[in-house]
Amino acid sequence: MADVKAKNRTRRSRPRRRDPEVLDAAARVFHQRGYAAASVQDIADELGILKGSLYHYIDTKEDLLFRLIEELHTETDAILQAVLDEPGLTPLDRLSIYVRKEVAFSVRHSTQIAIYYRDLDQLSDGRRAVIVERRALHERFVSSMLREAQKQGDVRAAIDPQAASNLLFGAMIWTYQWYSPGGKLSPEAVGEACADFVMHGVAARGDS
Amino acid sequence: MADVKAKNRTRRSRPRRRDPEVLDAAARVFHQRGYAAASVQDIADELGILKGSLYHYIDTKEDLLFRLIEELHTETDAILQAVLDEPGLTPLDRLSIYVRKEVAFSVRHSTQIAIYYRDLDQLSDGRRAVIVERRALHERFVSSMLREAQKQGDVRAAIDPQAASNLLFGAMIWTYQWYSPGGKLSPEAVGEACADFVMHGVAARGDS
Repeated sequence: MADVKAKNRTRRSRPRRRDPEVLDAAARVFHQRGYAAASVQDIADELGILKGSLYHYIDTKEDLLFRLIEELHTETDAILQAVLDEPGLTPLDRLSIYVRKEVAFSVRHSTQIAIYYRDLDQLSDGRRAVIVERRALHERFVSSMLREAQKQGDVRAAIDPQAASNLLFGAMIWTYQWYSPGGKLSPEAVGEACADFVMHGVAARGDS
Repeated sequence: MADVKAKNRTRRSRPRRRDPEVLDAAARVFHQRGYAAASVQDIADELGILKGSLYHYIDTKEDLLFRLIEELHTETDAILQAVLDEPGLTPLDRLSIYVRKEVAFSVRHSTQIAIYYRDLDQLSDGRRAVIVERRALHERFVSSMLREAQKQGDVRAAIDPQAASNLLFGAMIWTYQWYSPGGKLSPEAVGEACADFVMHGVAARGDS
């Protein structure tokens, strides 16, 4: 038993060490060729290893897509958690910080985010459901912050919080499409511009 | 010569008569199966006609995608033109009417719009360039209205008109993803909500 456990540990620890490298290569290949057209062989070639070696880390091509998307959620869930943990903020301030940080993250990882939005539907039903549930955490956070801020008079009374939440995500999500790496705006500046835009979009500032 | 012309007229007028029906069937099939996976046979089946009959209207499957996307632009270009033709409006009012009408149109045609955003890249380079140029008309309109409104003090001085234009399109474009036909909000109400959101997002209202 002890031997089997030790063996399992070894087999599991090895892939984890190379995870970021493998997922980065998968992201480049999926982005260029599209998930459907890409093969495990293409990703092995990108890594400069044999296909058989790549199968030490994964069972199927879908494992790579799923782990790539899970990894994005691990990072964005941490952003959400940090925003929730910060003490003494109004709902609207919390929302503003969330938008700024999420957008900066997302344009900094625009290759992966593009795959997320284009290829999420390629996951099996069970795995897609896992991701959709993780995404729903973010959607519930945004619409509940809007509702609370509206109760406090910080969001215009005429606004439908559900519609506003969707409009806000539209502005946020689309950033990966127009952000140009190395361009005039840094990821942080895009985050700032988006937070400013959506906060003015919903906030009551004596003009509701 | 006269005969050839008459024959051409006959050959051309026939497909045009059935165009909307053919393009609607193509939209349903492309939406359900994805453009890449769909075949001309699938579309003929959807129409209840023989594949050979469909080839009276088109030469290739791509013709259907291109005409479907061109048709969307013919209608949205008309919206833009009507907004440009309306006399006596401020740039910001013109922009607001544009957003409201474009969004209402786009959620009313969410099936076709979804194909537009997902499958535009499937067009040949030349045809994609035609569409990208037609899209650029809209992008130039929005960013120039924002610039003019900013000069007049109607848009906050701190805003980067190019970034604001992209954020605005994000909120607009994403509507086709969350609009639910027959739901709480009509296409017109989604258009109103989006126009209200983006106008507050950019407008100077004594709080710049």
